[in-house]
Amino acid sequence: MQNFSWFNPTEIIFGKDTVKDLAPRLKADGVKGALLVYGGKGTFKSGAYTQVTDMLNKAGIKFSDVNDIKPNPKIDKVREGIARVKAGGIDAVIPIGGGSAFDTAKAIAAGSSYSGDVWDFFEKKATVEKALPIYGVLTASASASEVNKIAVISNPEREIKTSMTSALIYPKVSVIDPSFQITLPEKQTVYGGIDIIAHILERVLDGDEGSELIDDQAYALIRTMIRVIPELIEKPKDYDLRAEYALAGAMAHNGFLSVGRATRGDFSSHRLGHTLSLLFGVAHGASLAVMMPAWARYLYEENPVPFARLGEEVFEIFDGTDEEKALEAIEALEDFYKDINAPTTLRELGIKEDDIEKIAANASRGETFGTLKKLEAEDVLEIYKLAY
Amino acid sequence: MQNFSWFNPTEIIFGKDTVKDLAPRLKADGVKGALLVYGGKGTFKSGAYTQVTDMLNKAGIKFSDVNDIKPNPKIDKVREGIARVKAGGIDAVIPIGGGSAFDTAKAIAAGSSYSGDVWDFFEKKATVEKALPIYGVLTASASASEVNKIAVISNPEREIKTSMTSALIYPKVSVIDPSFQITLPEKQTVYGGIDIIAHILERVLDGDEGSELIDDQAYALIRTMIRVIPELIEKPKDYDLRAEYALAGAMAHNGFLSVGRATRGDFSSHRLGHTLSLLFGVAHGASLAVMMPAWARYLYEENPVPFARLGEEVFEIFDGTDEEKALEAIEALEDFYKDINAPTTLRELGIKEDDIEKIAANASRGETFGTLKKLEAEDVLEIYKLAY
Repeated sequence: MQNFSWFNPTEIIFGKDTVKDLAPRLKADGVKGALLVYGGKGTFKSGAYTQVTDMLNKAGIKFSDVNDIKPNPKIDKVREGIARVKAGGIDAVIPIGGGSAFDTAKAIAAGSSYSGDVWDFFEKKATVEKALPIYGVLTASASASEVNKIAVISNPEREIKTSMTSALIYPKVSVIDPSFQITLPEKQTVYGGIDIIAHILERVLDGDEGSELIDDQAYALIRTMIRVIPELIEKPKDYDLRAEYALAGAMAHNGFLSVGRATRGDFSSHRLGHTLSLLFGVAHGASLAVMMPAWARYLYEENPVPFARLGEEVFEIFDGTDEEKALEAIEALEDFYKDINAPTTLRELGIKEDDIEKIAANASRGETFGTLKKLEAEDVLEIYKLAY
Repeated sequence: MQNFSWFNPTEIIFGKDTVKDLAPRLKADGVKGALLVYGGKGTFKSGAYTQVTDMLNKAGIKFSDVNDIKPNPKIDKVREGIARVKAGGIDAVIPIGGGSAFDTAKAIAAGSSYSGDVWDFFEKKATVEKALPIYGVLTASASASEVNKIAVISNPEREIKTSMTSALIYPKVSVIDPSFQITLPEKQTVYGGIDIIAHILERVLDGDEGSELIDDQAYALIRTMIRVIPELIEKPKDYDLRAEYALAGAMAHNGFLSVGRATRGDFSSHRLGHTLSLLFGVAHGASLAVMMPAWARYLYEENPVPFARLGEEVFEIFDGTDEEKALEAIEALEDFYKDINAPTTLRELGIKEDDIEKIAANASRGETFGTLKKLEAEDVLEIYKLAY
């Protein structure tokens, strides 16, 4: 097991009708004005928006909005939020939504206390020294942005979707009320679930020995997701299933599954998928359903052991050599994605073969990346071809 | 799944040669003088004491000691520490040791900022409003005091061993260097492991449905402990085994296994064991090896399901009715304790049958307790008789 440090100060308030529990926290912290950061329809349909504004009105806290945050959120909305904060009267940021709202809110919280342009954080030209506190209300689990220190934002001008991290952008409090997720469209439940599975797999498949104990925890989490997603397709209104899903989503990517590993994880599949979202607006979960199996097929032969272990622990594949078990595990994962109606090829996403070189160039951008295998530009191209 | 809130701000620094990483934290926090709280021999033998004092000397931080903290630590040592702090020059507490040192340090940290007697916190007559920061160095895993907000202290005058809790006594930073545990006597590895297993079982056996996801995580942790303890008896110097043990110990009782449960856990076995430690100086882990199986045998028939599940998930017991599987699981647990040379009866602890009534009275002290089954005075007496 490798040395590590672990710190996660986010308070989670989890359960039914818990938005109201934000009020005493906001008051104790002296919050007078808040910036609400959210998308649109879903925020209203879930009931979250009304609950938050009722809570704020009762607590006598003023608020203004930055809304219309879209999936794969963009830097212009972050800048819009920062301008609002700099105009005065705001001392806290309240995302209402999923990863897009949280990531935007985090970038606003950091950028508001910085004199330069917020994109500097994403280009690693500046580090966060101060940030507004974030009190979030989650309405869609997937990114675990509600419990981590990461914000992923797209910059269309620069043609890049990338992340910033800082311990100062952990939400101070995150309300996770799984009942808000009962109104989510099936597609979002499926794609969110695939994202959650990816966050777990990107740890156990990073090529580091890590810790058997943490691996056991990770496999138990994957089994949970593989059980819960199909059940939720059948029973989308089941609160307990929504709760298991929401809790697993947070645990998958709060950072704990990285402890004891030499790497924090191999997030190649995420990077390969980000390009599809950036260039073609592909849903994040869909991009992972396509790219993770392709990535795995491309390199499992060089290091079949972790894939074979995945087969044993999750798909009950016990026969054959490690190579055989590994391939069977990758096929089983792909079959699972098909069973829950996710796309598993670029073709199904409507992407043309002619675009593959351009896609590969965007993902590589002259860098090698990945830990299980360092991916050069030609590897990346081959993976996209396999995904086609 | 029940509503819950979760907050744990302790920073963990985990791994080899990590004591030195405390220095930048202490300096950043402006610590000028520290109170070291520790036992004796073990602290020196492990090398922890030297590493801590070297680190403090290099950092220019003054320190004084409260030492000779014994297992089942007593309130007089807490009062001694508080007197030291009140004499001035100390702005942080540094426990070096296991649960006894950490629990003593936590109570000192809380009592030092309180005008009344520190025992008030244990009698729930006062709540903590301020506490000194705690920077701990762990040399023996078991209690998870290094990552939780609990302090368990004995008061011989009042004939009670009991706990205080406060979010203000979470250690600010805990250094967990598993290599310090390589010098632990076998008995302590065994007893610590039994304590860790008890912390996990006291959640899954609390009678609440909780969350399947968290149960899965809990069973994976128990399987880890059942694998690691016998291996450590064979290979006490194996760093990776020590690391798995230390990490499992922290995860077992940092509070997370309680999330989603109606109760925080059923800690009856701990309470039944505390009396044995208080009255006869029984090692904490030994008290649990005796009392937990007796407690389970006494009540499993009324609610066999969680015991049967334990059998399936940990001991691969799949045949028979729930009652049969439950009994087999309890026997398997007891056999495991015997295999690792732990006592499983009061008789083996040298306790006389004549003392049982007095023991039962001390554990009950006119209260009912427990969640899987509410234990009245007569239940408690019967459990001790079964344990004999």
